[in-house]
Amino acid sequence: MNSGQTLLINLLIIISILISGVIPQSILISGNRKVAKDDVVYCNSWKFSVEANDAGSWKQVPERCLEFVKNYVTGDQYVSDSGLVAYDSLEFAKTVEIRGDGKDVWIFDIDETLLSNLPYYAEHGFGTEIFNDIAFNQWVDSAECPAIPASLKLYNELRRLGFTIILLTGRDEHQRSSTIKNLLIAGYSGYQSLILREPSDHGKIAEVYKSEKRKELENEGYRIHGNSGDQWSDLFGAPTATRSFKLPNPMYYIA
Amino acid sequence: MNSGQTLLINLLIIISILISGVIPQSILISGNRKVAKDDVVYCNSWKFSVEANDAGSWKQVPERCLEFVKNYVTGDQYVSDSGLVAYDSLEFAKTVEIRGDGKDVWIFDIDETLLSNLPYYAEHGFGTEIFNDIAFNQWVDSAECPAIPASLKLYNELRRLGFTIILLTGRDEHQRSSTIKNLLIAGYSGYQSLILREPSDHGKIAEVYKSEKRKELENEGYRIHGNSGDQWSDLFGAPTATRSFKLPNPMYYIA
Repeated sequence: MNSGQTLLINLLIIISILISGVIPQSILISGNRKVAKDDVVYCNSWKFSVEANDAGSWKQVPERCLEFVKNYVTGDQYVSDSGLVAYDSLEFAKTVEIRGDGKDVWIFDIDETLLSNLPYYAEHGFGTEIFNDIAFNQWVDSAECPAIPASLKLYNELRRLGFTIILLTGRDEHQRSSTIKNLLIAGYSGYQSLILREPSDHGKIAEVYKSEKRKELENEGYRIHGNSGDQWSDLFGAPTATRSFKLPNPMYYIA
Repeated sequence: MNSGQTLLINLLIIISILISGVIPQSILISGNRKVAKDDVVYCNSWKFSVEANDAGSWKQVPERCLEFVKNYVTGDQYVSDSGLVAYDSLEFAKTVEIRGDGKDVWIFDIDETLLSNLPYYAEHGFGTEIFNDIAFNQWVDSAECPAIPASLKLYNELRRLGFTIILLTGRDEHQRSSTIKNLLIAGYSGYQSLILREPSDHGKIAEVYKSEKRKELENEGYRIHGNSGDQWSDLFGAPTATRSFKLPNPMYYIA
């Protein structure tokens, strides 16, 4: 065998190994009906249970789903999923009659809805680590969250349609200036108000705090047509919006 | 090059081609951020939008997702997903204090919750065809729906824990006898009552009809701890159960 042939064989071996390495386990076993032993199948189920609110309260991404969550939030599927939620939202928004009195509202949550904390979570195990509020608040103060591209596009389309945009976040009032700064850098402007947790809201679970704020808005005559959030606690609770839109988030849970 | 070496090279080439063939398109494009052109990526997003209630009302599975939905509902992932929902349900159920007065209730929907209509949908395009109520009602009357294994196991565990089981279905009162027969054949026994749509419920959307029935149960002193259904209209609307559990169903939507 000459050196050219040896090189060719080695090349083919390397290609074979490389290609086999990227085949997920779920494909290899799909004929065998082995369930939940496989991490991809299990983690897909775990993601379903989280997104459909079946899992209830949870504190950490299971260790075995670290790679799965990492691949999801950094890959095409998250881009596609958040894109389709934005598409669904806009299709509904187009059917809403805007009266022109400035009272037709769309509410957005901020974290994992308008802004992404992925750079932070990439440094903190993609949700597999216990939440560290000191480190996270430092990150928030840095005002470096990028926009979620599909949400930024939706946000601007809604403004163009004439919606009054109200931001309702679980962030604290003392984070107002860094939040405003971050929103501006990420491209979000022209919202009517930014509602943050005041001292009187401390200790309330998000669902209660956000429902109360929606109630106040309705009492002020606002008609809440759409509500976008990555947590069910952004969306549940009376009064609800006419339509609620759940963005994907398999990294953390807020009650 | 001798014949052994040639054979080895050919073998490696064949292996490379075979392995590349089973890599789904979504993996190959993951570096390029091409989204939604690939059917698997798109259909995963479509399934997310349906299960998170973002899609709103929809009439048919998109034609391009026929194979995706077929593979899902007949494969490991559905078994695993419905299994994890049952696991989540049971974990919650174990925390409920059963008072022994027969008033601690778990509500189950029937279709795609306790019983599976997969044999019917396999003959009708897995949801890609427009719903045919005549053909579907004939199927229901045949009483041939198999149990969803994870739900049957959960059902029996809940009975063992002392829950009063109430079945609340969108099926019509005139389908009572075929429904009772089917439940029995599939292994479901010992439920306290089976609530079907009476003539006065006709024309009500499922969410209203089912909320009214839950309200009646509460008025009778029942404490509704858990509620299992494959549609959000099984679960939304006051009064809600303490915990609601959404089973997967990418084949059809009921308002």
